[in-house]
This record gives sequence, C-alpha cells and structure tokens, in this order.
Amino acid sequence: MKIKITGTGLYLPPEIETSKKIAPLIGKSENWILKKSGVLERRISKIDVDKMGAIAGKEALGENRKPDLIINASGVPKQTIPDTSTFFQKEMGFEGVPSFSIHSTCLSFITAFHTASTLINSKAYQKILIISSDRGTRGRNFHEPESASLLGDGAAAAVLEPVLDSEKSELLHFHMKTWPSGAKLTEVRGGGTNKHPQDKETTNADNLFSMDGPGIYRIARKQVYKMMLKTLRDTSLKKQDIDWIIPHQASGKAVDAYVSAGGFNKDKVINIVSRYGNCVAASVPMALAIAVKSAKIKRGELVLLIGTGAGLSAACALIRY
Amino acid sequence: MKIKITGTGLYLPPEIETSKKIAPLIGKSENWILKKSGVLERRISKIDVDKMGAIAGKEALGENRKPDLIINASGVPKQTIPDTSTFFQKEMGFEGVPSFSIHSTCLSFITAFHTASTLINSKAYQKILIISSDRGTRGRNFHEPESASLLGDGAAAAVLEPVLDSEKSELLHFHMKTWPSGAKLTEVRGGGTNKHPQDKETTNADNLFSMDGPGIYRIARKQVYKMMLKTLRDTSLKKQDIDWIIPHQASGKAVDAYVSAGGFNKDKVINIVSRYGNCVAASVPMALAIAVKSAKIKRGELVLLIGTGAGLSAACALIRY
Repeated sequence: MKIKITGTGLYLPPEIETSKKIAPLIGKSENWILKKSGVLERRISKIDVDKMGAIAGKEALGENRKPDLIINASGVPKQTIPDTSTFFQKEMGFEGVPSFSIHSTCLSFITAFHTASTLINSKAYQKILIISSDRGTRGRNFHEPESASLLGDGAAAAVLEPVLDSEKSELLHFHMKTWPSGAKLTEVRGGGTNKHPQDKETTNADNLFSMDGPGIYRIARKQVYKMMLKTLRDTSLKKQDIDWIIPHQASGKAVDAYVSAGGFNKDKVINIVSRYGNCVAASVPMALAIAVKSAKIKRGELVLLIGTGAGLSAACALIRY
Repeated sequence: MKIKITGTGLYLPPEIETSKKIAPLIGKSENWILKKSGVLERRISKIDVDKMGAIAGKEALGENRKPDLIINASGVPKQTIPDTSTFFQKEMGFEGVPSFSIHSTCLSFITAFHTASTLINSKAYQKILIISSDRGTRGRNFHEPESASLLGDGAAAAVLEPVLDSEKSELLHFHMKTWPSGAKLTEVRGGGTNKHPQDKETTNADNLFSMDGPGIYRIARKQVYKMMLKTLRDTSLKKQDIDWIIPHQASGKAVDAYVSAGGFNKDKVINIVSRYGNCVAASVPMALAIAVKSAKIKRGELVLLIGTGAGLSAACALIRY
C-alpha cells in the first residue's frame, strides 16, 4: 500500500528516574534490575497521557497542518469513556476531526499503522495522525520487581499520507497473530467489567500491571522469529535487505534477541530500552521518531516494526520509509 | 466499498429488569423513567462481556467458520489489558486469529464497520468478525436517575466479507465527526491514568457512567441531522430511498427524533430502546441483528446506521445490505 510517514513527533518527560533510585523500592539491587530488565533509567511524566500525546502529535503535524483523522493507539487510556483520541484533539486545539482508538496493548501503534494504511488506500482519509501515549509508571506494582523496573512513560506520533506516484514509500507487508492461551501473561485485570473498581473483591494489585516476563519471552522469541521469516519469504527479501529493525522495547533481553537469536547486525536494531524502559504502546513510535530525528533512517530504506503485546499477540509491519 | 454482511448474531441476557422495579432505587416513578428515557425494561447479564460477545460471535459465524480477524467494538472493556478481543477469541475456542479493539464508545460498531470495510477492500482480510458487547448496568450511578434508567446489557456481532461481482451489497458512504468540546457530556472518568483506581481522590462516582442527556441531545439532534442530509447529498439519494434507519438507541427521545425531526416514516426506524435500553456500543448491532432476524431487512435494501457517542462524536454508515 502506497503510504508515507510525512512526520514524526516525540514527547520525553523531563524527569528521569534511575534504576539506582528505584532499586530499594522494589527490594532489589541496581545490578538485578540491569540484568533482569536492562533498564538503566526511565522517564516519569507529571502531565497526563492526553497532554503528552498532544505534544508529540503537534510535532508530527508540523506547522499549519490539520489531520483528517486522529487515531489513539495507546496501551492504557486516560479514562474509560470517552476514548483518549478526543482528549488528544482537545489538547491540540482541533474541533470536528473524526477520532477513535485502536487498542492491542503494546502493538497498538503497529496495528493502527496498518489500519490507517488501508483507510488511506481506500481513500477514506488523506492525513491520519496516530498517537501513542503511555504512562506505564502509573500502574507499576512494586511487589512485582521485574515489571515495575521495566515500565517508563513516553509518547510519540506519526502522520501518514498517500504518496505521489514518483515516491517509493509504502507498507510492503503486515502480519499479526493473537493467541488467547497467553491472555494471562500480561494483565491489568481491573478497569472494566471483570474486576470493577466498585467491587469489594477488587484488589489494588488488580489495577496494576502484572507481567510474566519469562513466560512471554519463551513464546515470543519463537513466534516472532517465525513471523520475521514469513515476512522475508512473502516479500522475497533477505535479512541483510532490512535496513532497520524497530522492535517493541519489551525488555533489554527482548530487544537483544533480534541480534542474538534473530541474527541481525546490532547496529541495525534500534535499542532505546536502557534509557526509556518499556513505554507500552509508545515504545515502537518512540524508537521510530528517535531514529528519524537522529537521521539514522533515510527515505527509501526498509524498516521493520515488530513486537509482541498482551493478548498474547505478535505483529510486524515492513515499510519503505 | 464492495462488502457484505454475511452473518449477524445476538445475545440477549435472559434476566429482565423492569422500570417499575428500578424506580424506587433511583428515587423516581415508573412514569418519570418512561417519560425521560423511554425504557420500559432492560436486560441484566450475569455473565461477563467476553462470554456474552462470544455467544453473539458464534451465531454470526454459523457452522464451521473461522474468521481471519476479530475486532472488539465495545464501549467498555472486560479489563484494561489485554483488550477484550482476545477474550472473545478465547471463549469462541479459536487460537492464532489476529485480534484488536476499536473504541469510540457508542459508535464503536459503526467505526469498526467502516474500518473493517477498508481492511477487506485493501485485501488485508477476507472474513472479519466484529463483536460489540456491553454491560452498561455494571456502571450505573443510582444517584444519576436518567442515565441509570437508560442503561442495559446486550451483545451483537456481524461478519463482513468481500462480495462477488454479481452481488449488490456495499458500503456506500461513511462519515464521522468528533467535537472534544463535548468530551465531558458522557464520561466514565475512572479506569485509566486520569482518575486511577489507586488514587485516594478517585471517588466511586468517577468509576460510574455520567451523562448529560439534555446537553447531548441539544448538540446531537442538529449535528446528526446535518450529517444525514450530507449523506443523502453525497450519494444523490432522497429520504424515501432509505429503507431502514438503525439509530444508536441513546434514549426513546433520541430514536423518536429520526421521525419527529428527521422526517422518516416511523416504520422505517428500528426502535428497540423501550425493551432493551441503551446498550452502549451493542445497541446498533443489536438493532441490526434483530431487524435481520425478524426478516425486516432484505438483501439489496439501503440501511443507514447512525448515531452519537461520547467524545462527543457523530457517525453514520450507509450500506446496501
């Protein structure tokens, strides 16, 4: 599908929390955190997800530009109703722009990117703003050291538009799979009809992140590798043809696996997990925006967005930037 | 876009709650409820949204059929993470089917219908199952009599597939608008990062539905009417060409407005609000499934799905069934 990323935006909260600082709060050492999660520091946002996302969204749109659709592609909403997209729009000062949310936890950006591409391909919209904004640190459970040390806050955005015939940018391939047998590997059990906040039996832990890191890694490494091979096969490409891998920043180990198990050159894999942690759905577009800003990714290069999310799901999108 | 609804499914919880029964709980008379909300009775589900939606989903799929995408298009999730689509899949006994959620509160089904049509149009998927399942009665605030008397539980589903060249089924027109100036007209302020369940200042009321019915009606009647006229203009159709109006069952007054203000024949407007209440995102597909089951809607007829949702948003989809 002939689409182009015409802008990217980023919001990195200024407040830094080091793993040295968090170590005593979770009853572990700094070294334990570095070994387990690979996170040296993460950002803590003092503003809510709508304001964070609006900053990233405005940067992606640039001067004097108004999208004709806003998609919220975050892991956790600002509130149950209305969906976060309307709050992004409010903070950006727009009115009347159609807005909705696409949710597949950490894969929300990749899913939304594919969906937005089909919306553009079908000529339903011409300029789609996708925003992922997550404040994972709001839902940390300090009694679960591994996930508590992983999560960070951040937001990023991308603008998608149709391309001119002379331009090469496109979405070459998309693939997704969901295995509900892994539904309990990553959860926030509260916040809906299951463990409603007003139910007496809903515990504080039900409203916080719960993650079986090793359990996810066991399934994810195999399934993501299979998905990557299928993508190469379906597009008749070789590993060395891929210019950049932008993985979900699930953990240091998960990102490293694209090198150690995936066989990609370390310099090709965008790794921001040690500096920013796992920022839920915002991780993929943050890594993309940072790689674009630092002039790593150039027009015409092949970029593979890939990862796993709660569900358990795996997805990848191969794009020519 | 050449798409066809190849199946619909419905789940109506067996337990009926009359407005006579609820009247003393909200400190109002049965007559007050009938006048304000137009709801005579509603269903109360004893099973959660995933089980409700899976029953509707299975019915929509029929025998021996597996979708290649499952979209959850509900107003309120089962839990914050993972998104409800994976729980639908689990209850239906599938594994490996890509699944995600589309959320625009009461308009989720209409938004998902349009998005699914572009996914099929772009040949990304061939058989998409959309499920809307809501248990609005879980979030009723008995101190807010109007919304408490409106909400009901229910689930419905639809299967979308590409059509043969000889078939007439299609999505003729879709339009959506969101006005964040109306974001506070319908809210559940809790359940996310805004009023997190663990925050001491989060009240019980923050986790329940809050709705300014008259405020919504004032904006909605005008905007929905404009959207309807635009749809007729853009498709060169007249009011009398539309065979069926399937409005979101926001309230008795909101559904009646398509007759009193919209000028449609009463027999053409599907009205299920008095029997089932406002079932959030499930209302539109429930009305569709009921109208199909009762053999009202026939192949080739023009059907307008239309309504408003929290955001504040308005949307409509004109389909040839």
